[in-house]
Amino acid sequence: MWYETTFAQKCAIQYPVVQAGMAGNTTPELVAAVSDFGGLGTIGAGYMSPETLEEEILKVQSLTSKPFAVNLFVPEHVDYSNDDVAEMNEFLASYRAAFNLKEPVIGTHDYATFEALVELVIKHEVPVCSFTFGLPSESIRQRLSAAGILLIGSATTVEEAKAIEAAGLDFIVAQGGEAGGHRASFHPYDVQRPPMIGTMALVPQIVDAVNIPVIASGGVMDGRGWAASHLLGAQGVQLGTAFLTTHESKAKKVHKQAIWNSKETDTVVVHELSGKPARGIENTFIQNLQQAQLKILPYPIQNDLTQTIRATAGKEGKKEWMHLWSGQNVRGAQDVDVVTLMTQMIHTAQSQIEQLKG
Amino acid sequence: MWYETTFAQKCAIQYPVVQAGMAGNTTPELVAAVSDFGGLGTIGAGYMSPETLEEEILKVQSLTSKPFAVNLFVPEHVDYSNDDVAEMNEFLASYRAAFNLKEPVIGTHDYATFEALVELVIKHEVPVCSFTFGLPSESIRQRLSAAGILLIGSATTVEEAKAIEAAGLDFIVAQGGEAGGHRASFHPYDVQRPPMIGTMALVPQIVDAVNIPVIASGGVMDGRGWAASHLLGAQGVQLGTAFLTTHESKAKKVHKQAIWNSKETDTVVVHELSGKPARGIENTFIQNLQQAQLKILPYPIQNDLTQTIRATAGKEGKKEWMHLWSGQNVRGAQDVDVVTLMTQMIHTAQSQIEQLKG
Repeated sequence: MWYETTFAQKCAIQYPVVQAGMAGNTTPELVAAVSDFGGLGTIGAGYMSPETLEEEILKVQSLTSKPFAVNLFVPEHVDYSNDDVAEMNEFLASYRAAFNLKEPVIGTHDYATFEALVELVIKHEVPVCSFTFGLPSESIRQRLSAAGILLIGSATTVEEAKAIEAAGLDFIVAQGGEAGGHRASFHPYDVQRPPMIGTMALVPQIVDAVNIPVIASGGVMDGRGWAASHLLGAQGVQLGTAFLTTHESKAKKVHKQAIWNSKETDTVVVHELSGKPARGIENTFIQNLQQAQLKILPYPIQNDLTQTIRATAGKEGKKEWMHLWSGQNVRGAQDVDVVTLMTQMIHTAQSQIEQLKG
Repeated sequence: MWYETTFAQKCAIQYPVVQAGMAGNTTPELVAAVSDFGGLGTIGAGYMSPETLEEEILKVQSLTSKPFAVNLFVPEHVDYSNDDVAEMNEFLASYRAAFNLKEPVIGTHDYATFEALVELVIKHEVPVCSFTFGLPSESIRQRLSAAGILLIGSATTVEEAKAIEAAGLDFIVAQGGEAGGHRASFHPYDVQRPPMIGTMALVPQIVDAVNIPVIASGGVMDGRGWAASHLLGAQGVQLGTAFLTTHESKAKKVHKQAIWNSKETDTVVVHELSGKPARGIENTFIQNLQQAQLKILPYPIQNDLTQTIRATAGKEGKKEWMHLWSGQNVRGAQDVDVVTLMTQMIHTAQSQIEQLKG
């Protein structure tokens, strides 16, 4: 079958459909449902403590015997001034007051945490580990590879894809500009002007530049995008928004509803919420942060500063004060469970391909 | 065959591959070569006088008996202040002095010209007419349709696509954010923040929203993008950059070379050159206009003001002072003639589809 690609075979999955590691939005049930169906579920461990990740891995393993992945954010050293933090805290004070929140501790997600998460992936023999915001060190890469763990890097440009290949990882997710959530860019760029290459243009250019399998992401919401990505030369697809609105996802109802009610023109790419550019539906919090014209702290500091506000807003159903990460193909978002979504994808892809055969 | 779509059949073309109407860059030889091969060549008449368009139509008709198209820019009424024009002229004075150019006459491309161009399309029985920047009036639409001329509208959003269908046009070009040159947007938008929906996300959303054939554009450079677009639900593709660098195109050598030497991250979407957002390779003229922070005149006034500078720069091989319109899939741009490009496209699309069949 057309979907029996090298990527799928190496990962020992039936369908090369990856559920994106949407940090903060995955549940063991989501990951297990995707993997159990034959795709590749991903624990979004970007913000997790080692304790939480271990619990989640064990839970997923109790729910399915199929391969799954863990997604990690590669930490980086950042410089920032305490004055800028103080100024941002001043701006955020009214939001915290409204929710009765204290000023958060910042900078907790350090390299030691990252290493601890990596050790858990090895300890529990997680089959696949994907990285966002950069590459693991050579020693970590070697430890993971030696443990038989397959590694995915995320690229937004051809140069990043080449760097992933050169670093010895196994697969590349090509993240097109349509994608929701954080831009995975890790080569130097202006946070106000990140690389935003559309999937249709990015995938063929990366496929032509590297010799390892490429997984397309950005704008893919159904079997049409899946099959189309394979014609572009990809060996699989990664979907975020499509899985974010499934019943099994941890995304708040108000977040899912915002996506279902959106138009394709409603998302913006902003760095004000977390310090790194990310695509989501525009709301009051974004607009207020932009109008304040304060210095935005680098990621993850800005993220630490706004995180409890966004999380509490999500819990209280206040969509104007949270993040509403979403890709551009919002009209394709559905209120379904994973099995329904994946069944549809396979059916649609298959019937589109049959039509092409004529 | 998979490419024998309703769009292709209605236009009586063998391959539903449209050469975009790149105003200022098409030649009768380019248009005729594309059409003669079985695609749909397009005379980019956006900036043409009626005299020039008539010459070009007659020339194309002398070179091929196959169907071809004329692309027209729909004029709009714009308000602007003479003070702003004077200020922009002051900024541009040094550029004009360097080339020994006079201040241009502005606002010549009016509605009367547009109507004259439409009459020529009817008089010479051009089979297809496409519109950019808006829709023809109902009376013009009726005259064209009554003459048996097929009409294409260009959409950057779902709402624009619905408007094209409601206006009674026959086909929709869905212009994804990857596309080079002008954004076709015609519903109200902020010129600093035009709708930039990637092709992978835009095409399925438009296909789902309308009942007339959709042609994908943006990021398509070869048979992979062509075939992929059909899986997304499109009935054909439109390519600009791929044809811009062919031997038959009128684009200046320095423009073609800039594209061949570019990376996918080198283009920007700016309204400073013409008054409307357009994607091209960043250069000194763009940077200087942005740094000057003057009020940019609305299209077509800004275009009129900078046009002779850009044209002369092009002639003199000075790439930093011209426009370098280009899409994001620059690494796919080739130094070939139309027959080679189209032959490759068919071969590649076909072999990708064979692989999918497995």
